Order: sequence, then structure tokens, then C-alpha cells
Amino acid sequence: MIARWGPSALDGIRPIVDGGVSSPQEFIAGGVASGVKPSGRPDLAAVVSTRPARVAVMTTTNRVKAPACHLCEDHAADGSARAVIVNAGNANVCAPDDAAHARRIVDAAANQLALAREEVLVMSTGVIGVPLPVERIEAAMPALVEDLDASGGGRAAQAIMTTDTRPKQLAVEVTDGAGGRCVVGGMAKGVGMIEPSMATLLVALTTDAELDAARTRQMLRDSVASTFNRISVDGDRSTSDTAALFANGAAGSVDPDRVAAAVTHVCAELARMVVADGEGASRVAAITVDNAATGEDAEAFARAVATSLLVRAALHGADPNWGRILMALGNAEVALDPSRVTVRCAGTTVCRDGMAVAFDRVAVANAMGADEVEIVIDVAAGNASATVLTCDLTPEYVRFNAEYTT
Amino acid sequence: MIARWGPSALDGIRPIVDGGVSSPQEFIAGGVASGVKPSGRPDLAAVVSTRPARVAVMTTTNRVKAPACHLCEDHAADGSARAVIVNAGNANVCAPDDAAHARRIVDAAANQLALAREEVLVMSTGVIGVPLPVERIEAAMPALVEDLDASGGGRAAQAIMTTDTRPKQLAVEVTDGAGGRCVVGGMAKGVGMIEPSMATLLVALTTDAELDAARTRQMLRDSVASTFNRISVDGDRSTSDTAALFANGAAGSVDPDRVAAAVTHVCAELARMVVADGEGASRVAAITVDNAATGEDAEAFARAVATSLLVRAALHGADPNWGRILMALGNAEVALDPSRVTVRCAGTTVCRDGMAVAFDRVAVANAMGADEVEIVIDVAAGNASATVLTCDLTPEYVRFNAEYTT
Repeated sequence: MIARWGPSALDGIRPIVDGGVSSPQEFIAGGVASGVKPSGRPDLAAVVSTRPARVAVMTTTNRVKAPACHLCEDHAADGSARAVIVNAGNANVCAPDDAAHARRIVDAAANQLALAREEVLVMSTGVIGVPLPVERIEAAMPALVEDLDASGGGRAAQAIMTTDTRPKQLAVEVTDGAGGRCVVGGMAKGVGMIEPSMATLLVALTTDAELDAARTRQMLRDSVASTFNRISVDGDRSTSDTAALFANGAAGSVDPDRVAAAVTHVCAELARMVVADGEGASRVAAITVDNAATGEDAEAFARAVATSLLVRAALHGADPNWGRILMALGNAEVALDPSRVTVRCAGTTVCRDGMAVAFDRVAVANAMGADEVEIVIDVAAGNASATVLTCDLTPEYVRFNAEYTT
Repeated sequence: MIARWGPSALDGIRPIVDGGVSSPQEFIAGGVASGVKPSGRPDLAAVVSTRPARVAVMTTTNRVKAPACHLCEDHAADGSARAVIVNAGNANVCAPDDAAHARRIVDAAANQLALAREEVLVMSTGVIGVPLPVERIEAAMPALVEDLDASGGGRAAQAIMTTDTRPKQLAVEVTDGAGGRCVVGGMAKGVGMIEPSMATLLVALTTDAELDAARTRQMLRDSVASTFNRISVDGDRSTSDTAALFANGAAGSVDPDRVAAAVTHVCAELARMVVADGEGASRVAAITVDNAATGEDAEAFARAVATSLLVRAALHGADPNWGRILMALGNAEVALDPSRVTVRCAGTTVCRDGMAVAFDRVAVANAMGADEVEIVIDVAAGNASATVLTCDLTPEYVRFNAEYTT
């Protein structure tokens, strides 16, 4: 059980059974098979607001950036859009005519949905360097639009999967105690490795709350910063990572702090699902650093521990190896007094003031064998905290990623 | 075969069969078992100059730094020292009285060697967080000093091993064509994981060339920068990494450029041995970036590729996966135009102008199955180059590092 993850308070937030991106009012979604995936499985999804909507997007900081990311940024620049098309099986990057193909997907969708092309976003995930058979996507567009309905969130979450072992979706109801009520939904894919090249994280979020463009952007940025930007499976950002938040206002005005907490909660839960589904992962670990001098320091420390191969291998062995944790902290490029560091693994203090303490190794190893493990590190330098989620490094991860061929 | 590694010219440099740290004149070395290693294998080594010597040291940039590292810096601050003691099996860090224990090792050696304590350096590697049984080292000091002789380099290289599968040592003869002749020797341990905690790299270098203190420091810094600082096994710096270069002048003056090239060559070969002996590694890859705008850019690009888990897993699969290479380049925090990037794997161009090119996949995969593989990336942004050595990421690495228990 991971306590230190997501928003600090969940007042007025309740889960919706089987909820997803089409749970908020006046959002429809769907997913079909276009034939891009050789398996013939669903590989083309759409999420559409049936009324005008605010939108915010964030895309990868990788310098090799898919044309779809650039199109998303362009079309969301004015703060409004109504649809996102996601294709899986081909990332449409580093391939001939990739930019033209991204535009053709948007044009086909806009045409079929009777929207301006600027109202349509696109995300692509899958193999890179291979020409996208865009005509298959164009041919499947009428069936995709036909498939859209208010219960289609699950079909969309299925269609965006690549090596994910399960779809990732969620929705919550938000009430603000002053009569306001709305829904926040989301779906994600990743961070499984994409045949054959890389991890990609795609996220679509929807809400029927009424938000202005600036607040929509702020909510997405804040939520991603504390959730999707604080997970690590293999430390590599893909060329296609994209997150989008649509807010269509169908439910009217709701206390924006509550909406923001709900968006963060949906992001946190999706992020947790992504880490748990990481290639070969057998457990999720939440690395929390407490009492750092600044929030940036706390995050840098937590990230250094979460990305250390030695720490992640020790996690696989359910090993309370605090020596590796101190070593990783020391590599964070942040001032550190090791003699003040305390480390707790699964609730037991295993290192105090930078030195070993006696503890029941069998009991701690057993506790660290759980599906979710918390490691809490106190650096005694201030009062800022941060938590980063990671997963264990396993022989299966290596095998999986070695056995792919281009 | 890796061509792009080490100094650009080897004029006047010839290998010495079975050479090591005691190959230069007036250096002696040895190694004995003190009982710190539970196996009873040799675990205590010394290298001593029988005459005054210049010294330079470099230690880890990890903020959690062993007392031995601080002692080395203090004792080398005046540019002179005559001995280094290395103990393996216990890193003497994050343990009670670690600083006092490091001083006791130095005092015991100084006493036995009849040197001032400031003339003695110490390096420790092994388990962290466990009190060092320093009295065993003190008790073994007379036997260690007894063991020292001009053929003891190999015994020293054996005694500093932890999980290394083989000793790593080397010496070369240097002639400068103007009558100057000297020898440069070296030994290293690492980057195997140290029971149970971390990788540690220890390096001792010796030469009988006459060098002033400033040049000794410069040679060590330059050689480490282009060799040991350009290898990666798991991306973690240990708390104990240390390199020391002793120059005792017994051979008189030799063209310093030749000496510098020889020191770099010895470091390059030791670094290559370290990567080849990396935990679970089945092959070494040299990642070269050509035509970057600056040397820093070239190194950042090469390092990003060399440390990417996805690239390293692909290396294990002998997979010319240029998509992962482009993804890793894009994560280097350096300006990049992907449409100008060319990638060669084991001599074959697999990507040109950021796009796939046709190539014989079976032939390239076969070539990449060799013990040493070269990947050359042209980023077409200038004319600076850098090479970083890495090894493949294997299931054995993970298994090894998961199965340790503290």
C-alpha cells in the first residue's frame, strides 16, 4: 500500500465503477481495428467532446519529437479542441512523410467528425522508423466515428495499448459541497516498451467541469508534474509522450480546487497503473524523501534513488539495501550530510544517522516482497518532501527488451 | 575490435608482458590475506615507491564519500606521497569509527614502512555499513610489507579484487626518440558490484618518469577524463572511487607528451578491462559520436546512448536498434537535428538523415554479436568527437544484483 502518492486530500472525490474518458457528460469515445497492428487487435481510438471544449497539452521534452506532438501543440495553442485520435502500432516518427501522415490522420478525423482540423489532436505510438500505412487509418475512420458513444471509454483504453498487459482507465465524481458536481476521467498507455523501440506514455483526460483555458493548462501542468513526471521505469523519455486534458463545461462550475485535486488523483492512479505494468516489473516502490531543503532537492534525491539500477535490482530481491540508497542519494548533485540520513523500508528503520541499525531482516524482506513497497528517506535538511514511483528491475525486463529485433 | 578508444597516437609505446604497478623502476608492490574477506583470499595490497615521488589523486564526486577518499586528498594535497594501501572486502564507509579506522590503516603502514603518515594513501572497497575489523589489517601489515617486491604488481592486482572475475593490470615502456625511456604501470578493480552494496572503481598508476606535481595532476586528470570518466556499467558512482598516479622520477626526464599518452593508454586499457568485466556483461560497446558542435556535446550524446537501458538491452540482443539510439540522443539535453543523424552499427550504416536505410539485418546482427562492438553516430553539427564505453545489460546483471542480501 502506497500512502504518499497523489493529492493530499480526496474530499468530495468518489470513484466511478468502470469509469474512463467518456464518463464526464458530453464526451464520447471508441476504439476499432484499422489493421496497423499486425495482430489485428484494436489500434485506433478517439475521444470527442460533443460540445466546444478547453484543452491543454504537454508533450515530450525529447529533442527527437514526433510530428504528432508538434500538431498537438499547434492545435491546442488557442486553448480549444474537441477531439483526439490515437493510433497504436506505429509511432509515425523518423519515417518518410511522417509529418504529412500525421496531418492526414487529423484531416480524416476532422472530415468525418465535421470539425475544423484545428479542433483535432493526434497521438501515435508504436514502432518507429517504419512508414505508417496511413491509408488504413483513413479507411477505418468512418468505423471509428461510428463506434463513438458515452460508454466507449473502455474500448478507447483498449485500442491505445501496445505492449501494455492491461488497459488503464479511471473516472471519479467530484462534489464541492456547494451544489457543484462534475466528473473527471482519464486513460493512459505505457510504459511498456513499444515494438521495437521505446517506452511511450500517452494520456487523455476529460472533465465536464467548466474551466477557462489558463486554469485547464495549469491543472494539467501541476498534475503531470507531481504524477507522470515522477515515475520512472527505465529513465528514457520517448519521442511521442503526450498528455491532453479536455474540459467541456457541460457540468457547469465546480470548486476548481476540488477539480484540480481530482485531476491529480486520476493522473496519480493512472501513473501508478503504468508503473505496475512496467515491462517485467514485479513490484512498485514509492520512494519518498522527507525534510529536504527545497522541493527541487527532494525530487532530485527521490529521482536519483528511483532510477538507480542497483536500488531497483535490490528491490527485485526484496532487499532493504540502504547502502545502495545512500550511494544513490549521494549521486543526486544536491548537498547532503550523510550522517543525518535515516532510511525506512516498508515501515522499518534500517539506517539512522547514516549508519546501520539492528532490525529483523527476515521480517523486512518479507514486507518488501509485497506488490507495493514504500521507502521513506529523511535527509534532515529542511521540510520539503517528494515521492517518485518506480518499479523493480528484473531479468524479464532485460530479456524482453533484448529479444526484440528491429 | 574497438578503434576509437585511448590516445590518438601510440608512438614509442610498447606493452610489457605481465607488467603492472611494480614495473617502473623503484616501485614495489604486494598483496596478502588479512582475513577481512570471509573467503580468506588476498584482500590487502600495497604499492610503494622506494624513493620520494610526486602524486596526484582523484576521488568520487558522490556526496557520500568514504573517509579513505578524504585522507587520500589530504595526504596528496602537497603533491607528494610514496605509498598506497588498498583493502578489499570492506569499504569502511557509513560504519562506526570509519574515519578513525582509515587513519589506523595509514598509521600502521607508515609505521611499518618507516614513512611519515602524510606519505601514505589508503583506498577501501567492499561492503558498506559494516564495521571494519581494522585490527586484522593492522596485524597483517608486517606480512604485507614483507611481501613487497618489484614483481609484486600481480599480487597487488589480485588482492584488490572484490567481485571482479580477473585481475586488471598493465604496463608499457615509453621511449621518446631523444634517449628518454620510462615505464608506466597500472592496476584497477571494478566495476563489479561490491558485496553487497555498490560498484567501486579503484585505480593505482605508477611511472618512473620525472614529472613535477602540476604535470602529474594534469596527466591524471586528462587521462581519467577521457577513459575512466567515459565508461558506464550502471551509471552509479560509488562512495569510494579513487585513482592515484605516482611518479618517482627514477628513470629521469622523458618527453612529457609521450608519458601523457602512455598514462592515457594504460587508463584506457584498464577502463576497457573494467567494462568487459562488468557484472553479467557479455560484450563491450564503444559509442562514438562524431561531428558534434562541441566536445561537451559529443560526450553528452555518447553518454546518453551508453547509459540508456533500452540501448544496452538491445546490445545484449545484438540488435542494430537505431530507433532507441535516436531516442537516447534526443534525451541528452543538447540541441539536435534528428534529420541529420547517421548511425553505423559494427561498420554498417543502419540510419541515414534520421531515417531507416536498407541493410543486411542478419549480417549486422552477427557482427554485433562480437565481444566488442562499435557504434558510430554522426550528428552533423560540427567536428567534435567523443567515445564512451559501455557493456550490454543482461538478465545476469539483474539476477546478480537482486540476489545479494545485506
